[in-house]
Amino acid sequence: MKKSALILFLFAFLLISCADTTSQKETTTTDESPTNSFGLVIHGGAGTILKKNLTPELEAQYKETLEKAAKKGYDILKNGGTSLDAVEQTIHILENSPLFNAGKGAVFANNGKNELDASIMEGKTLNAGAVAGVTNLKNPISAARKVMENSDHVLLARKGAEEFSAAQGLEVVDTSYFFTENRYNSLLKAKNKNEKDKAASLDPYIKDYKYGTVGCVALDKNGNLAAGTSTGGMTNKKWSRIGDSPIIGAGTYANNKTCAVSGTGHGEYFIRANVAYDISALMEYKGLSLQEASKEVIQNKLKNMGGDGGIIAIDAKGNLVAEFNTPGMYRAMVDENGTVTVGIYKE
Amino acid sequence: MKKSALILFLFAFLLISCADTTSQKETTTTDESPTNSFGLVIHGGAGTILKKNLTPELEAQYKETLEKAAKKGYDILKNGGTSLDAVEQTIHILENSPLFNAGKGAVFANNGKNELDASIMEGKTLNAGAVAGVTNLKNPISAARKVMENSDHVLLARKGAEEFSAAQGLEVVDTSYFFTENRYNSLLKAKNKNEKDKAASLDPYIKDYKYGTVGCVALDKNGNLAAGTSTGGMTNKKWSRIGDSPIIGAGTYANNKTCAVSGTGHGEYFIRANVAYDISALMEYKGLSLQEASKEVIQNKLKNMGGDGGIIAIDAKGNLVAEFNTPGMYRAMVDENGTVTVGIYKE
Repeated sequence: MKKSALILFLFAFLLISCADTTSQKETTTTDESPTNSFGLVIHGGAGTILKKNLTPELEAQYKETLEKAAKKGYDILKNGGTSLDAVEQTIHILENSPLFNAGKGAVFANNGKNELDASIMEGKTLNAGAVAGVTNLKNPISAARKVMENSDHVLLARKGAEEFSAAQGLEVVDTSYFFTENRYNSLLKAKNKNEKDKAASLDPYIKDYKYGTVGCVALDKNGNLAAGTSTGGMTNKKWSRIGDSPIIGAGTYANNKTCAVSGTGHGEYFIRANVAYDISALMEYKGLSLQEASKEVIQNKLKNMGGDGGIIAIDAKGNLVAEFNTPGMYRAMVDENGTVTVGIYKE
Repeated sequence: MKKSALILFLFAFLLISCADTTSQKETTTTDESPTNSFGLVIHGGAGTILKKNLTPELEAQYKETLEKAAKKGYDILKNGGTSLDAVEQTIHILENSPLFNAGKGAVFANNGKNELDASIMEGKTLNAGAVAGVTNLKNPISAARKVMENSDHVLLARKGAEEFSAAQGLEVVDTSYFFTENRYNSLLKAKNKNEKDKAASLDPYIKDYKYGTVGCVALDKNGNLAAGTSTGGMTNKKWSRIGDSPIIGAGTYANNKTCAVSGTGHGEYFIRANVAYDISALMEYKGLSLQEASKEVIQNKLKNMGGDGGIIAIDAKGNLVAEFNTPGMYRAMVDENGTVTVGIYKE
């Protein structure tokens, strides 16, 4: 009887040990239920965006533009369009608005020019395209797409990227198109700032620091993911600095197996932490959900390195995520029913 | 008695199930025994490098230069130097040799210039620096290090990177320094090639295709890892194309928690596959050994996408790896005893 009691004890012990392993697995497994058959998330930059610094009128303008952009992408997806088209067209609206640091409204580099970066990636093929430091293309996100679709390359820079894009028939504008008085004043202010502050971008609208960038991630009805990011980079940037936005795996990543991600923040940290690809790797290799992976990267890994910023992401099941470690991030989500949720500050 | 037999059966069953889980874990866990307390691996490019195309004299020259470079790094490490110094100094020797597509001996871009890319990363701090498209810096790897150590940025491009590097006191050379007749003839040949071949680099030495790049990964006596990569990119490249070599996470990555990696191959695929960071992620998140992770990325993931090339890598325990899916890769390894193993073709 004593022996059989011991056996029973061991049996119970093993049962508990095994159950423990199983439950651990379950908590780290992606939720299997599809959330949305299609949808998208957009962002317009993250940073010290506080309600007290934003007038009600300006807040309304931001919300209106974010909603307009999100609805544009939603309509494309609802009508059976590709996630790539949704990403490109949605970003056009943000690039064409002077409110955001991308396209019209981009910040000024130290040399008084607007040097624009953008990238795009397709989750089905893992194809990608990007441009860095272009100064005369109205919509850099379209240049990134042309690089992806009509060149053998992923990343083209500066004059070379401009020549390629012009030959592809993209709209070339005079560099004065990118002049906005607000942003130019920010450059003048930044030039007088101390060293400590030079990494951030003093935003003329929110009167505080913001890492401006715009981005969009989308899932279409065919289950294809895409991600895109476009930016003017940092106010007062020097030496043809390239940030994370045109770097695949840092500022942008898409893979149908996992997710699509677009980032905004202190780009150097996003490059060193491989932010966008890391979220995908945590899902693929550790079985984390999109929300868990995004939180781990933005709130732990990136924050512990000293990196500020955020990401938007969508996974193959239509889960929508916006995660940031800054006081605010301009953002909007649209689910399959067309419900748009716009956000600026932390909830 | 029957009941107790059933209990015993269930007990045995559970024991097997649990043991199974344990053994699965063990096979995917990194070997705990340190292999080398310090050491390094270098590469000089991968591609269709066949014995029949290499004269004995040229083969000897390659081996001699690889050995010289490897020994240089070894001496630094043996004397207590940092892995960063070993990586930089070792790469100088490869950059200064006309045999390799980096520094002197770099291939020509379509515009008749030599446009050089390089990057470096430190595993302890995850700091990184890189330059893209520089045309007048003798040793681009040192420019990458200056960006890492003396700027707030990770990646600087073209004229801006040149201005920054010159202000840092790095050696500026006349662009004619990079002229080598062999490489120039390759450009002329490449311009007459059909579209299909334009991605590869017709190497004048091996009379076949090679993705030339040089790189070094090292572990120092303090347990710090570092990785560096330097290249002239692709012969006949256009539009200021940037490949994987200056992209952290693609061509170069180092993290004391996992490994240091430097890649050589068809750069666009290395960017899209996040090759260097992916090896680290497979170790960190899936518990693969350095050898297993390198094999998975180069022989499966990259190959399935259609990407040719290879990597060298070293982990925190001093395991040395050279993995490539091409017929050859110029490479050398040095263990803690100073034993140098040079290789060119597949074993």
